[in-house]
Amino acid sequence: MDSSRFQRLRAFMEQQNLQAVLLTSPKHVYYFTGFYTNPHERFLGLLVPHHGEPVLIVPALDEEAARQTSSIQQIVSHTDTQNPYLLLRSVMPAAVNRLGVEKDHLSVTRFEEIIDQRIASEYVNVEEVLRAMRLIKSQDEVARIRKAIDLVEDVLREGLQKVAVGVREIELAAELEYLMKKRGADGPSFETTVLFGERSALPHGIPGERRVASGELLLIDMGVAVDGYVSDITRTFVVGEASEQQKEIYEAVLAANQAAISAVRPGERLASLDLTARRLIAERGFGDFFMHRLGHGMGMDVHEYPSIHAESEGTLQPGMVFTIEPGIYLPHLGGVRIEDDVLVTDDGVEVLTRFPKELTVLG
Amino acid sequence: MDSSRFQRLRAFMEQQNLQAVLLTSPKHVYYFTGFYTNPHERFLGLLVPHHGEPVLIVPALDEEAARQTSSIQQIVSHTDTQNPYLLLRSVMPAAVNRLGVEKDHLSVTRFEEIIDQRIASEYVNVEEVLRAMRLIKSQDEVARIRKAIDLVEDVLREGLQKVAVGVREIELAAELEYLMKKRGADGPSFETTVLFGERSALPHGIPGERRVASGELLLIDMGVAVDGYVSDITRTFVVGEASEQQKEIYEAVLAANQAAISAVRPGERLASLDLTARRLIAERGFGDFFMHRLGHGMGMDVHEYPSIHAESEGTLQPGMVFTIEPGIYLPHLGGVRIEDDVLVTDDGVEVLTRFPKELTVLG
Repeated sequence: MDSSRFQRLRAFMEQQNLQAVLLTSPKHVYYFTGFYTNPHERFLGLLVPHHGEPVLIVPALDEEAARQTSSIQQIVSHTDTQNPYLLLRSVMPAAVNRLGVEKDHLSVTRFEEIIDQRIASEYVNVEEVLRAMRLIKSQDEVARIRKAIDLVEDVLREGLQKVAVGVREIELAAELEYLMKKRGADGPSFETTVLFGERSALPHGIPGERRVASGELLLIDMGVAVDGYVSDITRTFVVGEASEQQKEIYEAVLAANQAAISAVRPGERLASLDLTARRLIAERGFGDFFMHRLGHGMGMDVHEYPSIHAESEGTLQPGMVFTIEPGIYLPHLGGVRIEDDVLVTDDGVEVLTRFPKELTVLG
Repeated sequence: MDSSRFQRLRAFMEQQNLQAVLLTSPKHVYYFTGFYTNPHERFLGLLVPHHGEPVLIVPALDEEAARQTSSIQQIVSHTDTQNPYLLLRSVMPAAVNRLGVEKDHLSVTRFEEIIDQRIASEYVNVEEVLRAMRLIKSQDEVARIRKAIDLVEDVLREGLQKVAVGVREIELAAELEYLMKKRGADGPSFETTVLFGERSALPHGIPGERRVASGELLLIDMGVAVDGYVSDITRTFVVGEASEQQKEIYEAVLAANQAAISAVRPGERLASLDLTARRLIAERGFGDFFMHRLGHGMGMDVHEYPSIHAESEGTLQPGMVFTIEPGIYLPHLGGVRIEDDVLVTDDGVEVLTRFPKELTVLG
């Protein structure tokens, strides 16, 4: 795997005077080793000493897979009748005073087990450096995100062929998730959202028994997970013929989406993207109806840093990947959201999602 | 909701000298209040004082839903710019010395926030009493499990119509998950397993591109989640015509499944169910090829207590619900598993799964 990740972690250890770091979340073990498992209630850990080789601690069931897929040489395993914390202690380097741990992920029960084994005398949270590392995507990570985007766009294209007057939200959502699996996704990256008519005005609506009628909006928000990385896209369509009001809000959202994308370049303030989109929607008289943030980072998780809202601090940096998803939601009438995934490049932006955005009439 | 649950929790508080309990896992908040939400990174808590009314602490986004669906009168909410731990402190009863918390669920970060607010002086794990409560299902819980079972059995029945020589594992798995959603399940309760031919011998195999051929075994292990409860069923079929060896292992597994079910009654040792099934399989010469436990409890989670293996301690009690799922896995040839969900009744057993178990030839 990427040895620069270990270098970066060790620089943090140096700076924080940590003699070792213990990673315990499956995603971060994957990020550093290339080996992914869901250990359920069993203990999984990657011990990274400041000096010396990392040690991967896995349930016995996973040992073979870990040897085959991880970049780590030293792998130890525990069966269900062995105490993994004793095993952890046995592979700890001598004299660890300060140990880095994932405090947002580690449960109190596990933390107490570690403390009981006197693994270290102080425990320091390492979430911040992990977050900072994940904020900037490597080329390999961008390639995986592209794959997840290509896959979900193929699914959207094929799934739209099933749209006809009378189809139910839940039926179309299930069809889309079926196509994801059929095309090789590990699964949806979040619950697929399909909302018709006035229900498209619910930013967090869940697909139900509602059937689509002619002249109604149809909002689809979905993504897939594949090879550990995700995609997230929203498109809004009209079934039958679009009304003047539908066209008006669609054009306002599209203009906001495009203006925010045009503003993406290294050094730009995160908040200014949100403000650019928001101002444009407000100018067209819909300011009260765009009541969520502009976007969010994505990578191994569908919601990660940066968060892009009117009060976001910080500036854009090359390698950031995030969504741009303005929306207008008119209660009892309907809503439009257009969401793209973008990459900050060295000199501007690359829009990773390529699904057409002009207002499309279906059925 | 079920006031007997609060009584049981308060009896534990009495016994452990706890002045209050703070529940933070969405499932346990649901179990006590009837309100379910996935709060993601936001704080959710149910504070149950030993004396006085419980208080539900929810993200502002969830307040309306909590008022509509929970049994709790006192609901307070926090927006993203408010500190939920300050809010928690403000609703704490006076003089809480010992506070019960969910140490298996609570992250170290959250625990440190709670400690920083000096909410209590000692924190006691309440996982054990929650586990003991969940071990025995109420009539309402059994009804929800039945619903999840009926739904998955309908899905299985309909999905089998798609089996034909040449179908891929991943395609059939996606079809089954599509049918779950279409019939109103919240989703699969775990990744749907579909394995063909020699791959059916992998107890933890993942559906792939393998296509089924005539004369091969076809193993399906799946469940759904609906209304907060789950089902879990495995059936094994043959496509085309069954060989003598396939019939032999099928009959051995079926006999083990039936013998274990017949042994279920209040007071029986958990371990003896496993041993009954294992002995029968060993007698037929396949003892080395049944290498997992007999079964596991299920309810809100697809794996919960009791665990049923050769060294399980304890005895069966009315209201327990668990799986009985012996299997024989012949490497490079194929495997058979037959899994039912059973309820311990006052005088014996009720098999909740009703899908036929005789060897069925498909396609």
